[in-house]
Amino acid sequence: MEKQFEEFKQQLEDSGNVRERLRIIVADLDSVTRVMQADLLQVHYSSRSPEILKKAKSHIGKLKELYGQLAEVIKGTPGQYYRYHDHWRNQTNTVVFLIVYLNWLETGNLLSYAETQDTLGLNPDEFGLDIEDYLIGLCNVSSELPRYVVNQVTIGDYDCPKRVSKFLSDLYAAFRILNLRNDFLRKRFDGMKYDLKKVEEVLYDVKIRKLDSSGSAIETKQEAS
Amino acid sequence: MEKQFEEFKQQLEDSGNVRERLRIIVADLDSVTRVMQADLLQVHYSSRSPEILKKAKSHIGKLKELYGQLAEVIKGTPGQYYRYHDHWRNQTNTVVFLIVYLNWLETGNLLSYAETQDTLGLNPDEFGLDIEDYLIGLCNVSSELPRYVVNQVTIGDYDCPKRVSKFLSDLYAAFRILNLRNDFLRKRFDGMKYDLKKVEEVLYDVKIRKLDSSGSAIETKQEAS
Amino acid sequence: MEKQFEEFKQQLEDSGNVRERLRIIVADLDSVTRVMQADLLQVHYSSRSPEILKKAKSHIGKLKELYGQLAEVIKGTPGQYYRYHDHWRNQTNTVVFLIVYLNWLETGNLLSYAETQDTLGLNPDEFGLDIEDYLIGLCNVSSELPRYVVNQVTIGDYDCPKRVSKFLSDLYAAFRILNLRNDFLRKRFDGMKYDLKKVEEVLYDVKIRKLDSSGSAIETKQEAS
Amino acid sequence: MEKQFEEFKQQLEDSGNVRERLRIIVADLDSVTRVMQADLLQVHYSSRSPEILKKAKSHIGKLKELYGQLAEVIKGTPGQYYRYHDHWRNQTNTVVFLIVYLNWLETGNLLSYAETQDTLGLNPDEFGLDIEDYLIGLCNVSSELPRYVVNQVTIGDYDCPKRVSKFLSDLYAAFRILNLRNDFLRKRFDGMKYDLKKVEEVLYDVKIRKLDSSGSAIETKQEAS
Repeated sequence: MEKQFEEFKQQLEDSGNVRERLRIIVADLDSVTRVMQADLLQVHYSSRSPEILKKAKSHIGKLKELYGQLAEVIKGTPGQYYRYHDHWRNQTNTVVFLIVYLNWLETGNLLSYAETQDTLGLNPDEFGLDIEDYLIGLCNVSSELPRYVVNQVTIGDYDCPKRVSKFLSDLYAAFRILNLRNDFLRKRFDGMKYDLKKVEEVLYDVKIRKLDSSGSAIETKQEAS
Repeated sequence: MEKQFEEFKQQLEDSGNVRERLRIIVADLDSVTRVMQADLLQVHYSSRSPEILKKAKSHIGKLKELYGQLAEVIKGTPGQYYRYHDHWRNQTNTVVFLIVYLNWLETGNLLSYAETQDTLGLNPDEFGLDIEDYLIGLCNVSSELPRYVVNQVTIGDYDCPKRVSKFLSDLYAAFRILNLRNDFLRKRFDGMKYDLKKVEEVLYDVKIRKLDSSGSAIETKQEAS
Repeated sequence: MEKQFEEFKQQLEDSGNVRERLRIIVADLDSVTRVMQADLLQVHYSSRSPEILKKAKSHIGKLKELYGQLAEVIKGTPGQYYRYHDHWRNQTNTVVFLIVYLNWLETGNLLSYAETQDTLGLNPDEFGLDIEDYLIGLCNVSSELPRYVVNQVTIGDYDCPKRVSKFLSDLYAAFRILNLRNDFLRKRFDGMKYDLKKVEEVLYDVKIRKLDSSGSAIETKQEAS
Repeated sequence: MEKQFEEFKQQLEDSGNVRERLRIIVADLDSVTRVMQADLLQVHYSSRSPEILKKAKSHIGKLKELYGQLAEVIKGTPGQYYRYHDHWRNQTNTVVFLIVYLNWLETGNLLSYAETQDTLGLNPDEFGLDIEDYLIGLCNVSSELPRYVVNQVTIGDYDCPKRVSKFLSDLYAAFRILNLRNDFLRKRFDGMKYDLKKVEEVLYDVKIRKLDSSGSAIETKQEAS
């Protein structure tokens, strides 16, 4: 009986060591994402200045490095990615949010699943991005957009609501075709409807006041005269 | 004692099998309603094009078929409709919403309880529509309307708020005569007041800016002069 | 729209009236069961005196009358037994407990499902006893037995633990063959294991001290000399 | 965007189908283990009759078959054993309990981890037994032993406490060398201390009354004189 438990002891310690190594890497991931988030707060109060985006993007190299370390640890325990998944899941949701949001601020497009993996330097054969983690990251982007639109209109970008409304309604429609059996993901997706509604209300406010570029600046002036 | 429990075992298994069959049918209902909801998202961003409505309506045959299957299962357990009601309740609320909303988009009228049963091919003697399920479906329609009005005004249909406000205030008045003892239904109905308020605010925005067809651009200028 | 809602009003009121009538009958059921339970408390402190059981049994007529009233109300709403089941479910669990416990005190046997229905004057075609309600009632009997055994030994009935242990282990074994998908019932059944364990520990205490009738009275005397 | 989500839809459905297949197999596992547990209840009330153990063991072939089915499903999703582990974890804890308990009843020895895998026909390269699942199964065996000992003494096997106490104290000592970081396993192990204490108390009761085979009736008389 004792010999057997000595083996268990060794295996539980090996697994404990894996968890310890993951914990340290994920703590570093947490630091980097907090800095990126702080950098990205600036986009709410300025036009989308290339400097802000550049600064936020400068951390991506560090993210790549940390995911490389995660992959290295997991390579050492073949077939056990999902055994340890809980360790990096939350951080990865945030990382996807940051990467996809940044790209959207720059290009107005949705960074695809494959592009997101590329950006993080992930090799799906070794350590891929869980699809649900990607989708939760997209829900996080959605929940950031209402505040972004409100602040952009405040600083005078009246065309922003239309762009965001289009992007978000497309994203919402795409999600609707999924059969979400994962309760957490389904709940996060339910929130997207309210994000979209809020963005549409801002678009409405701008439209009804004819503040956007398709409205007649002249009429607005007349009204004000 | 054992013989008796063998009978219980059989009966619990029979009931378990009924639940299993219902679960599968309701999962199919879920798929169909998700597709219909995705189709109907389009009405927010376009005028009520007959194509969109036609596409959404094309799924009604499948709904009928699935309710036929539910009825078939329930026919096998006479007098136990309400024993298993929880299985299809939520989906049925959504189905009523879709059917009634679709009809309202097409005709501007409220699809009655009897017409809703007909549309779904329900025979009340075998498998009817619970009245409270119908009423909750109407509350779901109500909660969709503020967003609809906002989006319609955004794309320039300034007469929409008046139509919706009339429909929703009639519906609200009709509900007010009911003595709602069902807590869930009462809570959902409480939300209707806020839906109506929001729609009335949009109508006010449009009226005060004389954007609806009863106003005119000239009047606006006069006001400004 | 109004005419339709007038009909809904009527139907919701009819259903409200049914609930009101059920509530009153169930409140009466509650009174009767509380008196019966108070009567049965005496069995913990006396041998199973026929007077106590007779007194408790004297209320069964009233229970029959009240179930007759429930059946009458439900006969007026065909096929809706399970719509209103929640109203009498808890009380019925208690009633089954009382009837089955009383019978066990008297005969040492388990009152069967059919006998329980008979005792309550139920006609299964009109208003039967839900099987799960019967089973939960049995779990309630189980949870009463450890205390009963402790108190019986205290007042000197050293053969009681053996009888109870036999009854309860048979009941436990019978339950084990059921596939309990009802979460509440499964949870109640889980408690039966602890009831049985407690009863077995009392039996052990009695056995190891050779206090039961199979133990040698002489040995006990010697030990005491 | 749509094409990408079509792919997600497919992958989520594939994963949903895997879960559905696992759910059905695990429900079968549940049925088999319930019958085995019911069979094993008999060992509490009789000496360890070979017939009872034989009957319980007769189900092992079915368990093997079901684990073969689980392995088949998991082989179809390489590297995702731990993604779906939650589906069979609870049932597997119970299966380990049954297999190890049965073997202990027969031989008085602990069935090793490797032997448990063999008994279930598991090929560790395809679908192994998680070590923590094995250890939790052992904790379940421990928590059955106090009741077993109490009942064996009740039916006159006064040497049983000594055997069980030895087995359980060895098991407890073996567990103590493990560094249990898994909260659930640690909590289950904490209970083993109380199981051991209870068994030791029974052993004490038997010893102090000189009921075991090392004591004698004469000694008892001497003590009393």
